Amino acid sequence: MFKKILIANRGEIALRVIRTCREMGIKTVAVYSTADAESLHVRFADEAVCIGPPPSNLSYLKISNIIAAAEITNADAIHPGYGFLAENSKFSKICQEHNIKFIGASPDMIDKMGDKASARATMMAAGVPCIPGSEGILKDYEECLHTAKGMGFPVMLKATAGGGGKGMRAVHSEKDLRAAWDSARQEAAAAFGNDGMYMEKLILEPRHIEIQVVGDSTGKACHLSERDCSVQRRHQKLTEETPSPFMTDKLRKQMGDAAVKAAEFIKYEGAGTVEFLVDKHRNFYFMEMNTRIQVEHPITEQVIDYDLIREQILVAAGVPISGKNYFPQLHSIECRINAEDPYNGFRPSPGKITNLHAPGGHGVRIDTHVYSGYSIPPNYDSMIAKLITTAQTREEAISKMKRALDEFVIEGVKTTIPFHRQLMDHPDYVEGNYTTKFMEDFKMDPIKTE
Amino acid sequence: MFKKILIANRGEIALRVIRTCREMGIKTVAVYSTADAESLHVRFADEAVCIGPPPSNLSYLKISNIIAAAEITNADAIHPGYGFLAENSKFSKICQEHNIKFIGASPDMIDKMGDKASARATMMAAGVPCIPGSEGILKDYEECLHTAKGMGFPVMLKATAGGGGKGMRAVHSEKDLRAAWDSARQEAAAAFGNDGMYMEKLILEPRHIEIQVVGDSTGKACHLSERDCSVQRRHQKLTEETPSPFMTDKLRKQMGDAAVKAAEFIKYEGAGTVEFLVDKHRNFYFMEMNTRIQVEHPITEQVIDYDLIREQILVAAGVPISGKNYFPQLHSIECRINAEDPYNGFRPSPGKITNLHAPGGHGVRIDTHVYSGYSIPPNYDSMIAKLITTAQTREEAISKMKRALDEFVIEGVKTTIPFHRQLMDHPDYVEGNYTTKFMEDFKMDPIKTE
Repeated sequence: MFKKILIANRGEIALRVIRTCREMGIKTVAVYSTADAESLHVRFADEAVCIGPPPSNLSYLKISNIIAAAEITNADAIHPGYGFLAENSKFSKICQEHNIKFIGASPDMIDKMGDKASARATMMAAGVPCIPGSEGILKDYEECLHTAKGMGFPVMLKATAGGGGKGMRAVHSEKDLRAAWDSARQEAAAAFGNDGMYMEKLILEPRHIEIQVVGDSTGKACHLSERDCSVQRRHQKLTEETPSPFMTDKLRKQMGDAAVKAAEFIKYEGAGTVEFLVDKHRNFYFMEMNTRIQVEHPITEQVIDYDLIREQILVAAGVPISGKNYFPQLHSIECRINAEDPYNGFRPSPGKITNLHAPGGHGVRIDTHVYSGYSIPPNYDSMIAKLITTAQTREEAISKMKRALDEFVIEGVKTTIPFHRQLMDHPDYVEGNYTTKFMEDFKMDPIKTE
Repeated sequence: MFKKILIANRGEIALRVIRTCREMGIKTVAVYSTADAESLHVRFADEAVCIGPPPSNLSYLKISNIIAAAEITNADAIHPGYGFLAENSKFSKICQEHNIKFIGASPDMIDKMGDKASARATMMAAGVPCIPGSEGILKDYEECLHTAKGMGFPVMLKATAGGGGKGMRAVHSEKDLRAAWDSARQEAAAAFGNDGMYMEKLILEPRHIEIQVVGDSTGKACHLSERDCSVQRRHQKLTEETPSPFMTDKLRKQMGDAAVKAAEFIKYEGAGTVEFLVDKHRNFYFMEMNTRIQVEHPITEQVIDYDLIREQILVAAGVPISGKNYFPQLHSIECRINAEDPYNGFRPSPGKITNLHAPGGHGVRIDTHVYSGYSIPPNYDSMIAKLITTAQTREEAISKMKRALDEFVIEGVKTTIPFHRQLMDHPDYVEGNYTTKFMEDFKMDPIKTE
């Protein structure tokens, strides 16, 4: 087993990794930027090394400084957390070269899954369903029509140079295809000077449902069931839950089997997440694979009594997994508490936390690196806490979340607590009736004056 | 279901009850003394009524004020928590008379189980094993000898007027009985002016193991397995765990059956605890029954995913229980964090908490009413938080407790955190090898200067 692990990250995930290391009797090294000197991950690690100032490319992304910190502290492994260098194949490779175990995917695996086209090709080879699409650029309208008929309407036309919705058209039947083709090309040409178009199957009422997998060095993999992360704003997940209210036993088995097939096909080692889009007919399509721990991993831990960070460390040390799949025994919800103002377009709200009281009691878990008196630096992402509630049923988990949010006091900065509190009362959320489009129509109620 | 519950208590248990009420959609009324105006239970209840100044007999024990608070707020039930009026039959009766549901035992039940002699007689009638003893005062040495031979050595001679260990003798064989009889009588006569003696079976290496039960209005009861509360100082529990490291499946079945038999014999309604002494040969003996929620109830909740406060409320509202027994699926430990100085005879240390950081993360639960800036009043008991860790094995639960204690920062007052931290490393505790005598030999290590 490793003797000392350096955590190449900050915030709650750095603290999360330190906690499991302490429980396993492994020494820890924190690294920190000058903006994070007062962070709890620095306080609770056995050793801490300052690796530079913000912004991140001078510290948390500065590979040479991190490797130097590992070498001077004699760390024999590095846990990258999520974000920063967690899916950086160069970093994974440099760790290898320095004989420091990278607790994450191999450089090859990161490259294979990090590139969208390569990941898609690999998954298609593995027999995992991907979103049907044209093979590259459509050369003319004939090919466009033929492709659309082949995959079946509705379809989405997309400009190859596109972005921000420009040159994109959802087409629901053949009669609308020609007009959409023409107008999308014109728009693309005007916007990007490039009218190349490709086509994907349009996923109706899509849900983002992901499967947690763990693979080991023997090539064996298992799944730990799903997380529903459909409540997103601009592709940023806001809250997650497991089980998905949309899930059926049959679909869980299909998606779980597909995720295990994907992991075993590429001989995936470590904890990873296979993200799928699921349409309203419960067809599911591979989106991408994250070769790292996810922000939302605690809800999986809560419903199956499993420590995913521990599992990452064990697998990295060469311990084989049992190979059995895990199924949720309870219901768990995570709300990401961000220092953002939900009444003002979720604008970041860094600054000093003048007062903090975290909720507690039965079924409540908090993962946070902040405390009363802590100053949230403006340099990093705005997540300051994860509030997780767990109960026997979804209804109880929501009730618990509501009372926990009501108890959560953070003063001095704006937070997304009021957003989550309203979400938990939203009829569609309560019904489990939400897709990735949910936030497009969501409006905050006016602030109540009590 | 009740519309509004008044909580006739303070501190963490008042907050605990409020939490479950909120989750169940039941309104709450806090009562508080002037010393507790800043307590969280006042802040988080829907309404709060001041019921007088400290000491408790002017507020938390003042039945008329509490009933008046319930009446002016239209509360239809009262939860008494533990301590104060929780086992006061007069209070239970007055609630009945005022048509307010007392969420606890009936007056008769409290009287029956509150009086030691009556509880013992009832349990013997129910066929629950009690500590063998003489029938009242031993009239002479002949009867003493006869009784000792009847129950078998070792025995304990006790002065009927005794206290503080005076007039007590442990006797391990017949040859020592005569001398013990004479000297104990002399000592008792000198100390209390009364040389009356009685005899009990001496329990060797006793453990305090209790069984949680729940009974309903149909007369049905179930058990929720055990809690080992042997780590005590002057009969005050310091830390508890479930399962007991001393437990076997056979003993759990025997003790669970006995506890259910006890509860059903008396038609017990609500949550209660049957406390047993268990000797080194795994014989168990009824000690007493607590007709209320216990401080240490969370560890049971953690290992069987059960909300005991919710169950109390449901049973009080007439909802029948399922009747099935519950067995621990995990291991859970609770440390009672008291504002006491473990380096100075556990002397109480009230005062202002100048800084507080509570641990969090996987498998950690905190129940507390205090916060940074809170002043612990000198008027009440010194428990300020319950720290509970839960994991798949005892070893992991201890590891988690160690790291959680290491993270727990409470400044401004002395606390028992250093005691618990040392306990978790004590070889006998780690081995699960402890009895109710454990603390008699426990010594704090000197304070480390870091």
